[in-house]
Amino acid sequence: MMKRNVWRLAHRPMGAIRDTDLEYRQELLPDLPDGHVLLRVRYLSIDPAQRVFMGDQEQFAAPIGIGSPVVGMVAGIVVASRRADMAAGTVLAGMGEWADYIVTDGTGFAPLPQIEGRHLSDVFGTLSLVGPTAYFGLLDVGRPKSGETLVVSAAAGGVGQIVGQIGKMRGCRVIGIAGGKEKCEFVTKALGFDACIDYKNSDVGHALDALVPEGVDVYFEQVGGSIRQAVISRMNHHGRVVVCGMISDYEGNHADDRPGFWWTVMMRRLTVQGFIVNDYADELPAAIDEMAGWMRDGLLATRQDIRQGLDGALASIRDVYSGRNLGKLLVEVTPE
Amino acid sequence: MMKRNVWRLAHRPMGAIRDTDLEYRQELLPDLPDGHVLLRVRYLSIDPAQRVFMGDQEQFAAPIGIGSPVVGMVAGIVVASRRADMAAGTVLAGMGEWADYIVTDGTGFAPLPQIEGRHLSDVFGTLSLVGPTAYFGLLDVGRPKSGETLVVSAAAGGVGQIVGQIGKMRGCRVIGIAGGKEKCEFVTKALGFDACIDYKNSDVGHALDALVPEGVDVYFEQVGGSIRQAVISRMNHHGRVVVCGMISDYEGNHADDRPGFWWTVMMRRLTVQGFIVNDYADELPAAIDEMAGWMRDGLLATRQDIRQGLDGALASIRDVYSGRNLGKLLVEVTPE
Repeated sequence: MMKRNVWRLAHRPMGAIRDTDLEYRQELLPDLPDGHVLLRVRYLSIDPAQRVFMGDQEQFAAPIGIGSPVVGMVAGIVVASRRADMAAGTVLAGMGEWADYIVTDGTGFAPLPQIEGRHLSDVFGTLSLVGPTAYFGLLDVGRPKSGETLVVSAAAGGVGQIVGQIGKMRGCRVIGIAGGKEKCEFVTKALGFDACIDYKNSDVGHALDALVPEGVDVYFEQVGGSIRQAVISRMNHHGRVVVCGMISDYEGNHADDRPGFWWTVMMRRLTVQGFIVNDYADELPAAIDEMAGWMRDGLLATRQDIRQGLDGALASIRDVYSGRNLGKLLVEVTPE
Repeated sequence: MMKRNVWRLAHRPMGAIRDTDLEYRQELLPDLPDGHVLLRVRYLSIDPAQRVFMGDQEQFAAPIGIGSPVVGMVAGIVVASRRADMAAGTVLAGMGEWADYIVTDGTGFAPLPQIEGRHLSDVFGTLSLVGPTAYFGLLDVGRPKSGETLVVSAAAGGVGQIVGQIGKMRGCRVIGIAGGKEKCEFVTKALGFDACIDYKNSDVGHALDALVPEGVDVYFEQVGGSIRQAVISRMNHHGRVVVCGMISDYEGNHADDRPGFWWTVMMRRLTVQGFIVNDYADELPAAIDEMAGWMRDGLLATRQDIRQGLDGALASIRDVYSGRNLGKLLVEVTPE
């Protein structure tokens, strides 16, 4: 029988993920059942949400069971198939285990489009999770209008880099917030954001006052904490807050909000709306088609931050939590 | 020259309104300028928002200037006119001074519909401010669907009593929250709410768990504080929070929110939306027509809590803040 390497959840993390919370081990792979395929995993997508899946607080799906494999978006190649519609050689992406080989009946997996001139890692790192999250979150929840000001936190991350570019396509003035000079230069110079605030080296509120004295119309929220407070207190009347994430809360620090949040919501008629891309399953194929078109036409640039080796997955998700990624963080599990 | 009585703002209240914050005095009325009318005020509408107007915190219009008359919705009869389109005898309602006589050019005033069998105080106390607030807040922001569960705080107040009845018309299960047995009996027995939680004599969270184990779809928020927290933590996925008011915050206690508010918003995809009826000026006449029709057809019952005498206006707004009103609180300034 074949062997595989896999990450399993040993303990629910309290605060930051510790070495002992996850277990990396070698296991035997069972024979392939009828109706299943064997995937050789090429890439894992490392996302803040996976830390949420490891905990047992309220979330949008069942948390990972103790002893079960860690899961996330993966891309892989079918290397053995007992499903007629998923032939060997097909590249699939979907929610799967942190492993180098996965046996799946295909539920939740779909073929990944091929885009000429774009590497599999670009396509996967753009269209599989972060792209649709940016697309529906900004367009359906944020509803930006031409001429409005859009602020994007975690601007140099997987979702943020795409949100800002869609905002520019829609005629918005786009201000990113990111940690460090390198990230800020990336989003302004490589991606075309109008400006970027380096929250590690400047006061976000003061920087917003200088950059957008006209106020903020749409805030794409991914970080929580004091950055969220600084932006919301500068929202315009009828502004929209897209609650996509709050990474600073994911390790268990659920910050109180500043006094006056509710006052601001009422007096400025803000709309604060939570959203999860999973709710858009029906519209997903059309969105992916549209975004693939943007990629083909050179309208959407994305950067992937690729780490080598499945055994580094734990270190990689820690890097996401400490902001040590530039662009979408992927783990390359097996070479081409 | 004629004299009038008027309430003027002497100091911006800190916390509850003190006797010395407002000044009740007699003044001379100027001659009526061309294009103006003289109104004999019949009723003042006493609303929580007036406490907001007296302060200088962020609000949706300029605060009342120190030394200026207190303002709010008033209904009055034209007793002298130098405007051809507002003849003597016309009953007008609009934003006006807390006084027994008002000189106005008519800006912001409109004739009050007459409804057979309903007293002027009923029509004014239903259609002038609270009715449209309930109507647009519930229907446009809350967007209730038949079969959903609607929770209304301040249920026996001016807005709440109407929100619940519109919710019933739309096929919702309607749960009120009010302070005291008398208010709760009023909203269930006289208005047809399905249930009412007496927050003074029961734990709102436990009561909700018992009454609506299926969760809350729409929350019409008027109170802030621990009641808001109890309801929001029991919202269903895709629930809507209509941020109409937060009376417990208006005296300056801007409570922090409970930790986890943002988590709930995201994981349950809640929409939290501030709203002010002033934003619906274009749709207002049609809404008033529709609600007047409901009154004529006996579909909308409202109760007014009428106090006698302009000199009692200060005591009356204090009563609103301490919950000592049942139904819409009006001050009768001059008899018919």
